[in-house]
Amino acid sequence: MIIALDAMGGDNAPQSTVEGAVLAAVNSKHKVILVGPEKLISGELLKYHKKYDVTSLDIEIVNATEVIGMDEHPAKAVRQKKDSSLSVAAKLVAEGKADACVTMGNSGAAMAAALFYLKRIDGVLRPAISTSFPTINGSCIISDMGANVDCRPEHLLQFAVMADVFCKKVLEKENPKIGLVSIGEEPTKGNELTLAAFKLLNNGKLNFIGNVEGRDIPRGKADIVICDGFVGNVILKFGEGIAEMMLKLVKKGFKDHPVSWASLPFLWFALSDLKKKVDYSESGGAPLLGINGVCIIGHGRSHAKAVKNAILAGACAAEHDITHEIRDAIAKYGTINAQTETVN
Amino acid sequence: MIIALDAMGGDNAPQSTVEGAVLAAVNSKHKVILVGPEKLISGELLKYHKKYDVTSLDIEIVNATEVIGMDEHPAKAVRQKKDSSLSVAAKLVAEGKADACVTMGNSGAAMAAALFYLKRIDGVLRPAISTSFPTINGSCIISDMGANVDCRPEHLLQFAVMADVFCKKVLEKENPKIGLVSIGEEPTKGNELTLAAFKLLNNGKLNFIGNVEGRDIPRGKADIVICDGFVGNVILKFGEGIAEMMLKLVKKGFKDHPVSWASLPFLWFALSDLKKKVDYSESGGAPLLGINGVCIIGHGRSHAKAVKNAILAGACAAEHDITHEIRDAIAKYGTINAQTETVN
Repeated sequence: MIIALDAMGGDNAPQSTVEGAVLAAVNSKHKVILVGPEKLISGELLKYHKKYDVTSLDIEIVNATEVIGMDEHPAKAVRQKKDSSLSVAAKLVAEGKADACVTMGNSGAAMAAALFYLKRIDGVLRPAISTSFPTINGSCIISDMGANVDCRPEHLLQFAVMADVFCKKVLEKENPKIGLVSIGEEPTKGNELTLAAFKLLNNGKLNFIGNVEGRDIPRGKADIVICDGFVGNVILKFGEGIAEMMLKLVKKGFKDHPVSWASLPFLWFALSDLKKKVDYSESGGAPLLGINGVCIIGHGRSHAKAVKNAILAGACAAEHDITHEIRDAIAKYGTINAQTETVN
Repeated sequence: MIIALDAMGGDNAPQSTVEGAVLAAVNSKHKVILVGPEKLISGELLKYHKKYDVTSLDIEIVNATEVIGMDEHPAKAVRQKKDSSLSVAAKLVAEGKADACVTMGNSGAAMAAALFYLKRIDGVLRPAISTSFPTINGSCIISDMGANVDCRPEHLLQFAVMADVFCKKVLEKENPKIGLVSIGEEPTKGNELTLAAFKLLNNGKLNFIGNVEGRDIPRGKADIVICDGFVGNVILKFGEGIAEMMLKLVKKGFKDHPVSWASLPFLWFALSDLKKKVDYSESGGAPLLGINGVCIIGHGRSHAKAVKNAILAGACAAEHDITHEIRDAIAKYGTINAQTETVN
């Protein structure tokens, strides 16, 4: 597979992106196209020459003169900066020159560029960003995590159908359990949106396990957790904040009670599972589902390892022809019409 | 103050409620009315006779023959069980025989009983449950945490006005900072509800600091965090789930790496701050704001200390005549009409 990487996207670009591309090329059979200012990127790439003989690696640079910043207005930036690293990476996929595009940059702009250059899959009302979240027994996919703030029930149905395909084909989970975020387990609990979405999800085509409450998400009750993008975004950032708070309080505890330092050499072992679990660099980024082409959005703070994993996730999604699979699933049981046909 | 305690509410009732009432009576000047099956409650009370000479304590028992379970349908249970401990406790406040009612039971039923027996304050569209949540530098109030799932912007305005009064009068925080839960700091970020609520909150009468993201809540950016009850309920339970997951992973780490046990004697000191912070028994329960009378809902898993603190919180809210204060504030700047008048 050929992966177009937005080499200027993310807080640590282009260092982390170029290093991530090198790691991906060394550790896989995929080709990486680094998209960004040619001179800057080739200079960065040279740093790894001694260690990896980069000229022998399957890495190409495609020039892009502009950069979209993390705080720029997504749609405006994409419209105006046609030669940005993100736009050019998306165009490479649209033109069939790459099989997937990967960015650690502005996620709103990634969505805008994908919509502008790659368009939605036929029948998809709204593409969704699907993020992996750690659970006690593994991880789950939360969809949508922020692309769509005001949703209708049929949007939530499609988020579930698309995440289901991704989970089965790319994550290779058989029959993933799908839960709907709500405020109680009973089908009668929820707001107008979730009450209506519950009925659509309960269509017999999905492995829908019903409502899941906030606490059920980290408990790993569902493999796929469906919510509107407002709720998804708030809970993901809230989770980040809580983990940060707990860590800070423990650090303060160590500072205030120097006697506790004696625990550190032994404590390390006990914390290794937790550390690995909350390490987003393992997750491989969030796929943008519902787009005509594979697009992966990584964490803005990604370092090389996370970039490498996002590139490999993009290659994996492209290899499994996720776009085609989603198109089929949406047509079969992802629209209200299809639902009505199913019922009749 | 006289506090009516639903002695049968909560997972650990009546043991925890009766012990909590004893602790409150021993440690304060307030009178506690224990509401529940007379024989059962007096038998429970006798257990503390040796230690505290309960006959000298300001505790009374009022008989109530029925109990509302944690999983019963709120409105139906309140309508049918007129002699339940919860209903009788609410009636005592309605009849002026108690200054506040406190329950650790079914929070939906508490809301239903409060609406049925005490009614809403004039001008209040919807009462809200306001819960305390730990932050890195103290705690914040999240309102609403589940009473109202589909909200209009004016409901969110009123949640803010009511929580502001509670924060100033009962928690004695001067000029509390009010944040609106959204998906970005900019006023242009959010869903239809929060975009409209932003404008109402930004009225010059409240110390509104704008949107807060999920991660800003544990960071303590705001003293009062406003959201609809769906979002509030999901994030609170999600937070609970994350803390539980982190704890389980650390426990598993200790189990898998016995060498780490050597850290335990010293680790204890470092964790004391964190332990205290996430101990809900310190919080004193969640006030139901917007009701004609003080009503406090504690955690269903409350033990005696949490019950005691909820009783004291109820007494404190009653002493500060929170009902009267909320009525005034709602009339002055808590309705759309008042807003228009303010602008003119």
